[in-house]
This record gives sequence, C-alpha cells and structure tokens, in this order.
Amino acid sequence: MTKEDALQVLEDCRQRIDELDLMILELLNERTRVVERIGQAKQLLQMPIYEPKREDQVYANVTGGNHGPLPAEAVKRVFERIIDEMRTVQKLRMQK
Amino acid sequence: MTKEDALQVLEDCRQRIDELDLMILELLNERTRVVERIGQAKQLLQMPIYEPKREDQVYANVTGGNHGPLPAEAVKRVFERIIDEMRTVQKLRMQK
Repeated sequence: MTKEDALQVLEDCRQRIDELDLMILELLNERTRVVERIGQAKQLLQMPIYEPKREDQVYANVTGGNHGPLPAEAVKRVFERIIDEMRTVQKLRMQK
Repeated sequence: MTKEDALQVLEDCRQRIDELDLMILELLNERTRVVERIGQAKQLLQMPIYEPKREDQVYANVTGGNHGPLPAEAVKRVFERIIDEMRTVQKLRMQK
C-alpha cells in the first residue's frame, strides 16, 4: 500500500465511521423512547426503575450475541454507559 | 391503562430493547472493524492513534445529528466510552 492509498483508506474509513455513528445514534434515541415507555408502565405498576435482574439479562443478551472484534468486556462497558444514561433520563421524567 | 396492559407494554418494550441492543452491537462491531483498518493506515503513515481534532469531529457529528430524546451530553458520554474502548483495541493491535 502506498502512502496515497493509505490516505485514501483513512479518508474513506472516517466517512464510514461518521455514517455508522449516525446509525448508532438513531438506535440509541429509539432505545430511549422505548425506555420512556417502560418508565410509564413501571410508574403505573409501582415498580422501581432500577432492576438488577433485568440489567443482567440486558448484558447477557449483548455479550452472548457478540462475535467481535469488540471484546466482550468492552461491549459490557459500552452498554453500562448506555443503561446508566437512560436510567438518568427515566428518573428525570418521573420527577416531572 | 390497566395493570395487565402495563405488564404487556413492559414485556413488549423489553423484547424491543433486546432487538435494538443487538442492532447497536452489530454496528459497534462494524465500527471496530473500520477502526482497525484506520489503525493499519495510520501505522503505514506513522500517524498517532490519538488525534484530538478528529475526535472533536466525531463528537460534533453525533451531537449535531442528534434530535433526542437522548440529551446531547448523554450522547457525548456514550460516544466517549465507544471511542475509548476502540482506542484500546487499536493500541492492542499495534502492539502485536
């Protein structure tokens, strides 16, 4: 691979990253909307927002469904962040 | 909404979350593969893995493209985690 080829690869890859990120963003917002519906249902059922057993199922789903190259521990940490952010959203809605 | 309705909503929403998570996971692994190609190109070009200017572009792309309901700060924190995990993957490959 020449230097010019490598620069082209870099450029193409960065464009693809930007596209993938917008797709991930869309799914994150869709996930947030579903989490908001869950919050409403839980409020009616007087259930707590934080349910460790359900969160374990969420982690099992993604680590079990992972075929890499992202390592399982990295997948778990990314989803920990996602879940934590959405729990905050849920709490803010319930305070309203 | 009756209690039975709310339980059904909860069940449906959880199933949808599991589906969305597997879609997010697939995109994260695709993103990792692209990051690996970037790592190879950078190695050839003798460029550093960490480029703060490019990372700012990545954040600008996702926060600019965000229409909620996930707040911009939450989006940024999720992508900070994603970028951090993939930087670790890149470093490990380059050590090999």
